[in-house]
Amino acid sequence: MSESVPLPDFPAGHVWLCGAGPGDAGLLTLHAVNALKQADVIVHDALIGADILALGLPAAERIYVGKRGGQSATQTQISQRLVELAQTGKRVLRLKGGDPFMFGRGGEEAQVLAAANIPWRIIPGVTAGIGGLAMAGIPVTHRDVNQAAIFATGHDPATDWAAIARAAPVIVIYMGLKRIGDIARILIKAGRGADTPVAIVTDASLPTQKILQTTLGRIADDLAAHPVSPPAVICIGGTVDILENSNG
Amino acid sequence: MSESVPLPDFPAGHVWLCGAGPGDAGLLTLHAVNALKQADVIVHDALIGADILALGLPAAERIYVGKRGGQSATQTQISQRLVELAQTGKRVLRLKGGDPFMFGRGGEEAQVLAAANIPWRIIPGVTAGIGGLAMAGIPVTHRDVNQAAIFATGHDPATDWAAIARAAPVIVIYMGLKRIGDIARILIKAGRGADTPVAIVTDASLPTQKILQTTLGRIADDLAAHPVSPPAVICIGGTVDILENSNG
Repeated sequence: MSESVPLPDFPAGHVWLCGAGPGDAGLLTLHAVNALKQADVIVHDALIGADILALGLPAAERIYVGKRGGQSATQTQISQRLVELAQTGKRVLRLKGGDPFMFGRGGEEAQVLAAANIPWRIIPGVTAGIGGLAMAGIPVTHRDVNQAAIFATGHDPATDWAAIARAAPVIVIYMGLKRIGDIARILIKAGRGADTPVAIVTDASLPTQKILQTTLGRIADDLAAHPVSPPAVICIGGTVDILENSNG
Repeated sequence: MSESVPLPDFPAGHVWLCGAGPGDAGLLTLHAVNALKQADVIVHDALIGADILALGLPAAERIYVGKRGGQSATQTQISQRLVELAQTGKRVLRLKGGDPFMFGRGGEEAQVLAAANIPWRIIPGVTAGIGGLAMAGIPVTHRDVNQAAIFATGHDPATDWAAIARAAPVIVIYMGLKRIGDIARILIKAGRGADTPVAIVTDASLPTQKILQTTLGRIADDLAAHPVSPPAVICIGGTVDILENSNG
């Protein structure tokens, strides 16, 4: 009964936009590994670990286009680079942390590829806001707590946090470390209790994973006392402390 | 440079709660395949296809506990079954469609296991509301459209759809086929345009995948004219028609 999964060939001149999950290489999908094993060039961001890149062909070119550490590329430059690489007939793997379509700008890259008549494919991945939290023992939904969850980025000043406060019992914030103090104040003002539990998970799913458990009222002080570094995913609501973190 | 990923041994008497993704076996994670290759018993729901179950050991017992087709088990019965199987010293794989912690009731099962002192582990999966939509060419987020997305189930009469209408430009609904006509009316009354694009994706990621594109105003009539069967994931908002569905 043991079978293998049929997986597609990676045609020359195509671009595959692929999610690598929150960090743990074991959370790669079979499609992602299949893509890594065929790609001529891997265009990746800062969240892709060396163990994941090592799954690619030894001869594959690895191009870092992350937005950390100085040599940062703009989104337009990245999209254009994908087009040019595909036009040389390479199998181009665009590998992103998490999922390309969940705050991953995969849609923008796909639009540029489509406009340039480059065939593209999307390969979804496990997003940090669900799978990363899960690896920290935090369910995004729980029957007794919520029938809805909202996912937002923390970096857009135009976001209506008061509306978000009222929409769903559980709020998951990506890229929110810098502004979480302000966001917490708005959420409290909009009616969320200062004692609402909050977890800040850094390096979710990796051996370096850390969890800072706090509340909306204490988050700014706790972060000042215990600074953490990105990448972080923040979960606000009653699912945060529902389980013991007991991955057996 | 080509390496393999170290994956954990499945200890006897443990339960692993594992997401299998939206349907396509290629969207299984390496952790999920590793679990399938070691489990003595696989307790699965209706969304797990035969090709995925075939990845398990030939000798593994396969137990169907789905909620379709008559022989439906209650959640309490399922959780209790997991405890009993683990107590006999089996490696118990609880395999669910999508992600166990995203409307998957994995948290409830984990609580019962923890209370019975059964060691458990969570293995996240790709959820249909992100990865299934992606396979249909629909990004959940897009820079020009939204910095927030809300995920909700359609079956809870207590859900405040008016608040949800105001919270995020993109709304993803699980298990919403039965009530989507009523939900659409509430969303329109709360201010969402009747011309808001909607996609209903059934059998997301599978060869049988179908997409019904409509609008909030037309959805009830269109569903009456073109009935669809679950499982379906519904996406409402401006990301629905932003990409041509061009998986190359």
